[in-house]
Amino acid sequence: MKDTFERLMGVIEERKTADPASSYTAKLMHAGVDAMNKKVLEEAYETCVAAREQDRGHLVRELADLFYHALVLAASCGVKVAEIAGELDRRSGVSGLAEKASRGQT
Amino acid sequence: MKDTFERLMGVIEERKTADPASSYTAKLMHAGVDAMNKKVLEEAYETCVAAREQDRGHLVRELADLFYHALVLAASCGVKVAEIAGELDRRSGVSGLAEKASRGQT
Amino acid sequence: MKDTFERLMGVIEERKTADPASSYTAKLMHAGVDAMNKKVLEEAYETCVAAREQDRGHLVRELADLFYHALVLAASCGVKVAEIAGELDRRSGVSGLAEKASRGQT
Amino acid sequence: MKDTFERLMGVIEERKTADPASSYTAKLMHAGVDAMNKKVLEEAYETCVAAREQDRGHLVRELADLFYHALVLAASCGVKVAEIAGELDRRSGVSGLAEKASRGQT
Repeated sequence: MKDTFERLMGVIEERKTADPASSYTAKLMHAGVDAMNKKVLEEAYETCVAAREQDRGHLVRELADLFYHALVLAASCGVKVAEIAGELDRRSGVSGLAEKASRGQT
Repeated sequence: MKDTFERLMGVIEERKTADPASSYTAKLMHAGVDAMNKKVLEEAYETCVAAREQDRGHLVRELADLFYHALVLAASCGVKVAEIAGELDRRSGVSGLAEKASRGQT
Repeated sequence: MKDTFERLMGVIEERKTADPASSYTAKLMHAGVDAMNKKVLEEAYETCVAAREQDRGHLVRELADLFYHALVLAASCGVKVAEIAGELDRRSGVSGLAEKASRGQT
Repeated sequence: MKDTFERLMGVIEERKTADPASSYTAKLMHAGVDAMNKKVLEEAYETCVAAREQDRGHLVRELADLFYHALVLAASCGVKVAEIAGELDRRSGVSGLAEKASRGQT
């Protein structure tokens, strides 16, 4: 997965400067933060639909879409995969309901 | 990241059978697919807000929340991290707008 | 408002059978429930953004978009404005936190 | 519907200053814009689920929830029902795909 995510992020970062006419990733980043946000929300919705239907194959594809679009948004803001991983690692070791408090949720 | 995601998924899977009173992950899975879906959508929204505000630190934390809750949903449906990575790898090598077609988007 | 909502719903219902090439409403209904759902979620997101920015003019336009798309979805499922109004009326008279219970929320 | 929406909005506006411990509406407004936004998105999701399942009774209840929470958000920003109705009326008379352009959608 490290290779997958890091490699995917590398591809996304390279496409920041690609031609929006030939790269979907470049087109999305060029369209701006609200366009990327809408895609993240749309993929989140599609993930939820697939989960509700207990359709594993569909869910795998939608999760891949969600992760891809979330990484495009991350890249557009200069966030690295290692930072997300670091945040997740920082939280692990924390168990039980304490997890929730560590995320500042109510 | 492999270690991060695989390890996190291992922790989530272990908690499937934990006591919902002491594990946030168990509590969430116990609450069912609609409860997990709402968390995925809520975290997607919070990710969008952080991205709009160009607040990198906030965005890192929200992306971590989004990935964590997406993995909880995945685990509850028996989806493995390797399947999501496999789907993302399958798509790579595909470049430009062809990416979009490969995801079956309109 | 009765006139507004009832009249709008009348227009939407008429367009159910219009040519999708010349009517946005017909095009949306023709595209199916997932397409309408995505528009409802997109407009909900845009409403949230306008509210966060405390931009009244923007918020009025987004709320109009949200209500319009919600009514298109309602019409596509054969739901009448009077049924939604009836449900809201049924709940009124209910005050305080009892409202929440009446909606079956947790 | 005019009576319904105007009356509901009147109730919501009265509760702006109610005790959050005894009024769900006051509690929601007191919790702030992000809390109200999350409820709007959650109700939009539940509306989508009900529409997908073609469950009319469920859809009516979820649409009522969505409209109620959208009006709470509107009220918290000082938006009147008449403004939303005015915006919808302004757009009517506009037919076909011209509707879309009038909403500034792409």
